[in-house]
Amino acid sequence: MKLLEERIIKDGRITKLGYINLTEFLNHGVEPDFLSKLGAAVKKHFAADGVTKILTAEASGIPLACFTAQKFKVPALFARKNKREIIGGDCYSAKVASFTAGSVYDLVVAKSCLSPEDNVLIVDDFIAGGKETQGLIEIVKKAGAKLVGVAVAVEKTFKPGGALLRSQGVNVYSLAKIAKITPDGKIEFVK
Amino acid sequence: MKLLEERIIKDGRITKLGYINLTEFLNHGVEPDFLSKLGAAVKKHFAADGVTKILTAEASGIPLACFTAQKFKVPALFARKNKREIIGGDCYSAKVASFTAGSVYDLVVAKSCLSPEDNVLIVDDFIAGGKETQGLIEIVKKAGAKLVGVAVAVEKTFKPGGALLRSQGVNVYSLAKIAKITPDGKIEFVK
Repeated sequence: MKLLEERIIKDGRITKLGYINLTEFLNHGVEPDFLSKLGAAVKKHFAADGVTKILTAEASGIPLACFTAQKFKVPALFARKNKREIIGGDCYSAKVASFTAGSVYDLVVAKSCLSPEDNVLIVDDFIAGGKETQGLIEIVKKAGAKLVGVAVAVEKTFKPGGALLRSQGVNVYSLAKIAKITPDGKIEFVK
Repeated sequence: MKLLEERIIKDGRITKLGYINLTEFLNHGVEPDFLSKLGAAVKKHFAADGVTKILTAEASGIPLACFTAQKFKVPALFARKNKREIIGGDCYSAKVASFTAGSVYDLVVAKSCLSPEDNVLIVDDFIAGGKETQGLIEIVKKAGAKLVGVAVAVEKTFKPGGALLRSQGVNVYSLAKIAKITPDGKIEFVK
């Protein structure tokens, strides 16, 4: 998506730890109009798939999930991390090993919010290693719901997450694909 | 707000730990249309105040902050918790003692996302003790920005947070005020 690639070039920063930082508009600062346009592109791609629910994980995926859900006119649902006691009822959960935090956490979703009748589209800001996405897919399966696919703003194709999901037959749609970050901090997209 | 009170009565649950659980539509499951209506009510209340930014803290305040920001046509910004390394640049921060988690965490906001020219409206799903809101206000002050007020979906008036903020001269607007949860789990609103 040209609009997103141009914005990444304009406002993306590479942090000291090598993260691609899109804090100005995507996952810290949030621009509703811009994210609505990303949501509309996701809607267009999955328009024929009968999506009934948008699923993400807290926290940075929530804004895009919300504006995408608005386009589909369906609810969003964000999995909590290690907060079973806040949800407080029966839950589906999945363990995820976090690369950024160097720890293991539980993704937790209230059973009352996900049913076997749901056609679930997973939405997130980034996909890199894909561990969290695999955790969300595990929850969709435990609920007996149907996975429609995975939509992300940015896929890092130099990480294995997207490719692994596609090899499992998952429909992964990435609005921007970053192939490489050069040693001097330039972002190169997949052509 | 009658619409929200009716929905709380219909779908609110009291968890074993005594939390008011609005997971079906507000802060786990998220209904875009419903939250847009709450955002519109917040917009109406603060319409004359020149709001330039909506500030919240991850994670459960993000959906309402997003849909409120959309109504104001301004950016939202969500403070991260203990994730300075993900933001990766210069930050404003404030320490918050968490009642629910029983721990202390840092609220962190990138300096690039908040400027002295900003008129900031803090938005959250709940206010109870108000510690997190005080942390967000500390960040607004550190940025040299102006605090317009605080808008929440639900205020627990049996907790001190809202009253304390008002005593400090903060314009606190609550769409629903819960006065009491009875021993048998009934929710009573402020009349």
